[in-house]
Amino acid sequence: MERHVSTVEIVTELTRMRDISQNWRAHNAQIGFVPTMGYLHEGHLSLLRQANHENDHCVVSIFVNPTQFSPQEDLDVYPRDLEGDHAKIKETGAEVIFYPTDKVMYPPGYKTYVTVTELSSKLCGITRPTHFRGVTTIVCKLFNIVGPHRAYFGQKDAQQAFIIKKMVTDLDMDVVIRILPIIREEDGLAMSSRNAYLSPTERRAATVLHRALQNGLELFQQGSREPLLLQKALQEFISQEPLARIDYVSIVDPDTFLEPGENCQTLLAAVAVFFGQTRLIDNMTYSCDE
Amino acid sequence: MERHVSTVEIVTELTRMRDISQNWRAHNAQIGFVPTMGYLHEGHLSLLRQANHENDHCVVSIFVNPTQFSPQEDLDVYPRDLEGDHAKIKETGAEVIFYPTDKVMYPPGYKTYVTVTELSSKLCGITRPTHFRGVTTIVCKLFNIVGPHRAYFGQKDAQQAFIIKKMVTDLDMDVVIRILPIIREEDGLAMSSRNAYLSPTERRAATVLHRALQNGLELFQQGSREPLLLQKALQEFISQEPLARIDYVSIVDPDTFLEPGENCQTLLAAVAVFFGQTRLIDNMTYSCDE
Repeated sequence: MERHVSTVEIVTELTRMRDISQNWRAHNAQIGFVPTMGYLHEGHLSLLRQANHENDHCVVSIFVNPTQFSPQEDLDVYPRDLEGDHAKIKETGAEVIFYPTDKVMYPPGYKTYVTVTELSSKLCGITRPTHFRGVTTIVCKLFNIVGPHRAYFGQKDAQQAFIIKKMVTDLDMDVVIRILPIIREEDGLAMSSRNAYLSPTERRAATVLHRALQNGLELFQQGSREPLLLQKALQEFISQEPLARIDYVSIVDPDTFLEPGENCQTLLAAVAVFFGQTRLIDNMTYSCDE
Repeated sequence: MERHVSTVEIVTELTRMRDISQNWRAHNAQIGFVPTMGYLHEGHLSLLRQANHENDHCVVSIFVNPTQFSPQEDLDVYPRDLEGDHAKIKETGAEVIFYPTDKVMYPPGYKTYVTVTELSSKLCGITRPTHFRGVTTIVCKLFNIVGPHRAYFGQKDAQQAFIIKKMVTDLDMDVVIRILPIIREEDGLAMSSRNAYLSPTERRAATVLHRALQNGLELFQQGSREPLLLQKALQEFISQEPLARIDYVSIVDPDTFLEPGENCQTLLAAVAVFFGQTRLIDNMTYSCDE
């Protein structure tokens, strides 16, 4: 895959983005795509590097998508840093930042939504009932504009990744979805743009998520495979941290996101916990094969 | 546009349909697409001929889409005639009939739906609350499989056409939607596959729809532009036919499908009426320019 990249183009117009993509496709080039809300960390950059490695061209979108926030959530204060993101993206080899305005993506009178039923109302969907509808809608729109061959998402948002894969399968979208591993800070905290909200004490307390998930893994490896017992162990572990307020602790079958069956060989432990106003999520896969 | 067509290929597999389409696109050919539920009449064939005329290749799909029928509707008895359709399609120059099974389109565990909010719960959406969700979902899926440059729909299903155009705009789909005029029988009845359900007396009674719409047009041309008065006139006209049972008579702004504003220059009169168990729809545009 030859490449002659000197600059990253910031594209705000939908028609320009489409032209770039159609020109690449007309030359039979493969397009990798990483949709983000910006304020990029190593997790995002790992997706970009992989997208760049597996495709001829790589597009990253930066769009803080209003339809996946509820009115009482952090849309207005969500961290933004285009200049910093631009510098980081340059290093990955990506060629285009698609950076549309709200008005381009949701003009007045906008009415169309993509919903993955059932899955969108579990786990994160309980406290955030319209969240996944916003995610699937914007991802569908971005795929239609960017026209990627492969799109990259992080395992940190496990339910999001699962729902997007389901949407792509159900709607017969011609895009390969690649899910890459969680990238963590040295002390185990999963990287997230929302970590920027944490006070120093909250930041220290937040390491309890990874420690709890690791503790659950050890129990699993010692033979404790009963989902309800694992769930209880995780809940108790997290509850020992006074700054942690649990939203949910769930043990699901990672192939269905439903309650695990009797002989389920692999379990997904997924947690959502508030530290002050900041809601963080994390997860870990427990597998008999490993 | 040169063409060497000898046979029409009937494609049942999604992957085969995608291969054909991608091969055409790789040769920079333009693809026209006509989604249908089969049992083709002159209305459908007019779409096929136009699609063939405006594109290098033309695909027609035949799929009686279960998600746009409610449990008490006519899914099981909806008329089917693949052999007859095949013969008619041959004459139009279309090259591919995409003819998938229910299982290919909606495998077990299917969960994803596309909804155009507000518009889908008016007019036909009142008696058929899940109908348009089924329509937009299947059209989105078919577009993703067939990958057309242009897709063709009939004005007979005016609300459907409007909702599909809205979906395509909102979801940034790269498809041009072409809406072609209603094709009528000699006595004015709009062509519909459901006309096959009518008994001879119901068939005669059903001409009241076009006569009522024509009567409304004459009133409009004589200066009667008040939506409520036009609506009342149409209702009274149709009510004179004892076999007609009105579902709705609506006068809307064709650019919004909402109540027309004070100075609306163009009105759309849309009707849905039962004759026995058979529900027929029809519409006419009343314009000051004509």
